[in-house]
Amino acid sequence: MSKKILILPGDGIGPEIVNQAVKVMDKLAGEGLDIELDEALVGGAAIDATGGPLPDTTLDLAKEADAILLGAVGGYKWESLDIAIRPEKGLLGLRAGLNLFANLRPAILYPQLADASTLKPEVVSGLDIMIVRELTGGIYFGQPRGVRELDDGEREGFNTLVYRESEIERIMRVAGDIARKRDSRVCSVDKANVLECTELWREVAVRVMEKDYADVELSHMYVDNAAMQLVRAPKQFDVMVTTNMFGDILSDCAAMLTGSIGMLPSASLDENGKGMYEPIHGSAPDIAGQNKANPLATILSVAMMLRYSLDEAAMADRIENAVNKVLDDGLRTPDIMADGMKEVSTEEMGDAVTAVL
Amino acid sequence: MSKKILILPGDGIGPEIVNQAVKVMDKLAGEGLDIELDEALVGGAAIDATGGPLPDTTLDLAKEADAILLGAVGGYKWESLDIAIRPEKGLLGLRAGLNLFANLRPAILYPQLADASTLKPEVVSGLDIMIVRELTGGIYFGQPRGVRELDDGEREGFNTLVYRESEIERIMRVAGDIARKRDSRVCSVDKANVLECTELWREVAVRVMEKDYADVELSHMYVDNAAMQLVRAPKQFDVMVTTNMFGDILSDCAAMLTGSIGMLPSASLDENGKGMYEPIHGSAPDIAGQNKANPLATILSVAMMLRYSLDEAAMADRIENAVNKVLDDGLRTPDIMADGMKEVSTEEMGDAVTAVL
Ligand SMILES: CC(C)[C@H](C(=O)O)[C@@H](O)C(=O)O
Ligand SMILES: CC(C)[C@H](C(=O)O)[C@@H](O)C(=O)O
Repeated sequence: MSKKILILPGDGIGPEIVNQAVKVMDKLAGEGLDIELDEALVGGAAIDATGGPLPDTTLDLAKEADAILLGAVGGYKWESLDIAIRPEKGLLGLRAGLNLFANLRPAILYPQLADASTLKPEVVSGLDIMIVRELTGGIYFGQPRGVRELDDGEREGFNTLVYRESEIERIMRVAGDIARKRDSRVCSVDKANVLECTELWREVAVRVMEKDYADVELSHMYVDNAAMQLVRAPKQFDVMVTTNMFGDILSDCAAMLTGSIGMLPSASLDENGKGMYEPIHGSAPDIAGQNKANPLATILSVAMMLRYSLDEAAMADRIENAVNKVLDDGLRTPDIMADGMKEVSTEEMGDAVTAVL
Repeated sequence: MSKKILILPGDGIGPEIVNQAVKVMDKLAGEGLDIELDEALVGGAAIDATGGPLPDTTLDLAKEADAILLGAVGGYKWESLDIAIRPEKGLLGLRAGLNLFANLRPAILYPQLADASTLKPEVVSGLDIMIVRELTGGIYFGQPRGVRELDDGEREGFNTLVYRESEIERIMRVAGDIARKRDSRVCSVDKANVLECTELWREVAVRVMEKDYADVELSHMYVDNAAMQLVRAPKQFDVMVTTNMFGDILSDCAAMLTGSIGMLPSASLDENGKGMYEPIHGSAPDIAGQNKANPLATILSVAMMLRYSLDEAAMADRIENAVNKVLDDGLRTPDIMADGMKEVSTEEMGDAVTAVL
């Protein structure tokens, strides 16, 4: 039976970059990949059309799908809306609604793009970190939350950071499993010296890893030190695992070490390998519709989809090799342009990767 | 009347670096600075001597003092203790007990040490950011907090992020006042697209700055983007203001951009300019007692003390100039050692600065 892929172009550059990824999927479909594509609205596009960022039809289609490809959501246009109905809520609703608790964010430096990094070459060459971020818990979803009025008339804003043992355990297992396919080292990041919630995080990390991942080396780092170490010596890390909020911050920091966030895909997985795949960069409303955006992170998200949700590792390799080839050939979208290279548009980049395939 | 300075050497390298700062203070006292020094225990040293990280006598002396100089707290030795009685609790107890709500963390690149940065020279040369971190609120102190057992027998850890309007307002004023003495730009960092508490943060930031700091340019950035931008283009920032937790992470990241955290002081101030001053680096138990640690961050903390709590800006300038001079002279402790420079010990560095003064 063919696999159902739901395409969610989203906002800003979302539609144009997703189009290039669809080209790649169409090409593979022509060669035997048995997929069926459907499309739906999310984020600002959904707000404009339906009044809310995550229409029921979109969530239903997402639940039925085997995998989801998302462009990006958000933009200036919707920034003044209330938190409850912003584009971001569409993304958070999908994560929670589909139980996508494991967010994988690789930070990989492409040797062809080493110059793009703001860090010295010796510090980042060969960089290959996998950040495993818990995605459906923590302070992002904790209750109670809101703004209340105090007795003296002042208002107070509050949110709740909360993790139960089973949530910590399952994300540790994801980190452990991934580490086994890599260098077998997991660094768990917390603030156990201040936050009781992450003291429990550390305790569970030790228990799970000692019991079932004795072959994987476990270390712990406070989040402030982790931010420092990412800048000081990022290559010390193999797999990092952390909470939703810390993962949001550290994965963006790690991604930027490469200097080319237009290149980095991500996967958000549930217990059964179903996943949502998206570039880590945003919707870039300032260049939307100009055929300038880099589609490679989205195309590489398709590779992650093939690997993690469709069990097609060979096809994933082919896409990654094709991306490497176009980089070797000197093709560059404006965000990664450098002296002596050939500047191409979003479309041209998508076509080039498809052609190499 | 002479000003009372309380010295808290703390743990690890704390005592040896604080000794060098005391030399500097003694020198200035000999030239008319009217100060009286006292000393007390905090952190692991206090745990070993009294069973707790912040003895009442220490807190009382701190309350009576006009300013406090702290070395560093913590170490492997006390890491397995419960959160409630760890060395860190001593530090947190001082911050809360003295109402030191404004933490100033400059990230400055010394031109003499530009090579120490892992970032390319053009990205960090001339870097001069001031991070203003809220220090007595937020998730560090929010109630309720702890670990509870759920009905199904699972345990759950929880912490509360909370800010009331007046807390946000006063830290914004500190940021605004400091910006006026610099480039008049404040970037407020939050996660207003996800956390209601920081949605309030943003609202209050706008209100305070528009009303009383119309001459200061206010911008907002999500914390994940701020972490990226610190790596991508740190010189875009003048003053950054943020919550306790985000400030912990971002200030360490910003500090590491300079490559020499052994050089960076910090100040924690109350409403009246009373303050606690300390290097931003930790207690480095691995090199404690070896006369190897860099005392310059602690000496520069004395300069901040003179400027912010003792109203002795001219003496602060003298210390900063003296530090610049010893760097120009090529003196380097091991952490900042480079080819062609002269390696010196903790003591020798302290003596050199005192001699230049
Ligand atoms: C858009 C926002 C809600 C989201 C997050 O904070 O998780 C984004 O920053 C991300 O990392 O995917
Ligand atoms: C030691 C620790 C409690 C402290 C903090 O988190 O505030 C430290 O990291 C700091 O930044 O001063």
